[in-house]
Amino acid sequence: MRIALLGGTGDIGEGLALRWGLDTDHELVVGSRDPAKAERHVAKYRERIEDRGATATISGTGNDEAAAAADVVVLSLPPEYLVDTVERVAGSLTAESILVTPAVSMSRDESGFHYDRPSEADSVTALVARVAPERVATVGAFHNLPAGRLTDLDAPLDIDTAIVADDETAASTVASLADDIEGLRALRAGSIANAPEVEGITPLLIDLAMNNDGLHNLGVRFD
Amino acid sequence: MRIALLGGTGDIGEGLALRWGLDTDHELVVGSRDPAKAERHVAKYRERIEDRGATATISGTGNDEAAAAADVVVLSLPPEYLVDTVERVAGSLTAESILVTPAVSMSRDESGFHYDRPSEADSVTALVARVAPERVATVGAFHNLPAGRLTDLDAPLDIDTAIVADDETAASTVASLADDIEGLRALRAGSIANAPEVEGITPLLIDLAMNNDGLHNLGVRFD
Repeated sequence: MRIALLGGTGDIGEGLALRWGLDTDHELVVGSRDPAKAERHVAKYRERIEDRGATATISGTGNDEAAAAADVVVLSLPPEYLVDTVERVAGSLTAESILVTPAVSMSRDESGFHYDRPSEADSVTALVARVAPERVATVGAFHNLPAGRLTDLDAPLDIDTAIVADDETAASTVASLADDIEGLRALRAGSIANAPEVEGITPLLIDLAMNNDGLHNLGVRFD
Repeated sequence: MRIALLGGTGDIGEGLALRWGLDTDHELVVGSRDPAKAERHVAKYRERIEDRGATATISGTGNDEAAAAADVVVLSLPPEYLVDTVERVAGSLTAESILVTPAVSMSRDESGFHYDRPSEADSVTALVARVAPERVATVGAFHNLPAGRLTDLDAPLDIDTAIVADDETAASTVASLADDIEGLRALRAGSIANAPEVEGITPLLIDLAMNNDGLHNLGVRFD
């Protein structure tokens, strides 16, 4: 399967690229607004994967070109860039494309981090689904992954990711891609209407790390 | 320590009574609107604890009397009864009393369960803190416990509970009571302002159980 990681030079994009590169044979295309930056990062990702005796099919390019070439397009971008990016790459998507959004909108005050629902939709996932071209399926996934552990290939994961989608086939495809990563377990959480509760865990993970000695880079398990 | 479980005939109250009864020497007072009902349930709890070779100091009475006798008052009640119950027992609380609220407000539609913030406050925990007498500390805890597993004394827990409170001493007392239960780990999640993200996990646990074969009675671990 061909996976594009738009904003794939950020930490979640880097982590997913490294993990899929190491653990799978999927073809990875890292996108950035600056294609040269994507290429530079890809050279480093490739080196880290090869250092572990694996080989990855991975390339770097602009976000538009990455989206056009992919079966699954992961929007590993800060939430404030999501709408613009989806609108910009919309023409490159086909009826078979799947958009995946791991973004969470948060604010911080003196008591810690808080989940901020976007004003235009119930969740960031719902917002992406709303601005996506009508024929393109949107899947919420990878919201609660600890970036620091994902990018550290020596760190075991042993965590879950909750998948929300209104399209059953798309949900199943993305759950399978998540399960392909060693130590990551995809769990189905129903439709996009259930995304707020999933997204809300991300600020809590940061608050827990801030308030408990010895805990950092937390993920979540549902057991 | 003396712990009152108001609404202690419901499933979370029963689970906490059984677990504290089995695992600790705390004195437990199960409260109900109907004292005779509390006594009948306590007889069953005591039998189940003694069947496992343990003894518990546990009694049943009315909610008011239970609250008056306790250091820690757990409001194991449906969310719609919380405000009335806190107002009714307010006169029985002292400056040393600690109120603990595990309640979560949820709604259900065709896509599953959703977290409902109360209209009057950011979270159910914040609502309890608002109606509690000013001198009494409120702690949010035990929100995400699977009642079916808690009441099944053969079932290992191996799960976490996130503790939120604005009063450090009260938070620490309740965290310690949670840690007293075998297989339960208390994690500090900061102030009551962080309660919405904790409470929101409960409907997600139900949605995950509904959408994944073989998963039921889920709890959460932050790892």
